[in-house]
Amino acid sequence: MTPTERRPAVEVLDPDTCRRSLATDQVGRLAIVIGGTPALFPVNYVLDGTSVVFRTDPGTKLDHVGRSRAAFEVDDIDRARRSGWSVVATGRLEELTQYDAAALDRARELPIDPWAGGERTHWVRLVAERVTGRRVTGTP
Amino acid sequence: MTPTERRPAVEVLDPDTCRRSLATDQVGRLAIVIGGTPALFPVNYVLDGTSVVFRTDPGTKLDHVGRSRAAFEVDDIDRARRSGWSVVATGRLEELTQYDAAALDRARELPIDPWAGGERTHWVRLVAERVTGRRVTGTP
Repeated sequence: MTPTERRPAVEVLDPDTCRRSLATDQVGRLAIVIGGTPALFPVNYVLDGTSVVFRTDPGTKLDHVGRSRAAFEVDDIDRARRSGWSVVATGRLEELTQYDAAALDRARELPIDPWAGGERTHWVRLVAERVTGRRVTGTP
Repeated sequence: MTPTERRPAVEVLDPDTCRRSLATDQVGRLAIVIGGTPALFPVNYVLDGTSVVFRTDPGTKLDHVGRSRAAFEVDDIDRARRSGWSVVATGRLEELTQYDAAALDRARELPIDPWAGGERTHWVRLVAERVTGRRVTGTP
C-alpha cells in the first residue's frame, strides 16, 4: 500500500449535504456563550427548513436567547472505521412566541420529542446564517 | 403503567463519573468563542488526568489558545432507547511547548490519534476547571 492510499481524506461538505445531514438526527449539541465562556447542551431538535428548532423550560438556554450567538453541532462517528461527519450551524436564537402565532403554531406541530421530559413549553429556533460540515474517512 | 413509571429520569452525574466518562471516548467536540460567536470542532483527544489533550495544526484552534475560554463535550447516545449521557469540561486552553518540556514529552507519549491526518505537531490541553454531566434515561 502506498502512502497515498493510507492517507485519510478530509472532505468539506457542500451546503446541501450539510442541510440533509442536519435533518437526519434528533439530538445535537447547542453551544452558547455565557460571560465569555462557551457552554454546551445536548438537545433534542427538529430541522425546519434551515432552522434548528428545540423546546426548553425557563432557564439558562432561554435566558440567552437574544443575548448570545449560538452554534449547533450534529455528527455521526464510526470509531471502528475512524470515520465520521460533523455539521455545524451558526446563527442567532429566537424564541417563538404568540407575537408570531403562525411560526409558533408551526413549531408546535413539529415532532420534537425531548427525552428528558419536563414541560418545555418554550419553542426556540436557531436561525442558521452559516452551515458548514466535514467528513473524515480514516485510514483502515 | 403509571405516569410515574413513564416519566424519564434525568440524573446529574457526580465528578468521578464525569471524569470516568470523559476517559471512555476518543472523539469529542471542542467549543471556543471567536468574536463573540461559539465555534465547534470535533477533535480526537485523550484524557490525561483532568486535562483533555489534543493535537492540532496552525490555524483557528491554535490561534485561540489563550484568547478564548473553552468547553469540551463527550457523549454517548442511544436513540432507540431515548437515553444517553453527556459530559462537559470547561476551562482554559494551553499549548504545550518546549518551555515545559516535561509536559510536552508526556503529551507526545499519549495515544492521540487524529483520524483526519495532517502533521498536527502542536499539542494543546484544556485544563478543566469544571466538569459537569447528565444522564437521561428515556421513556420506553
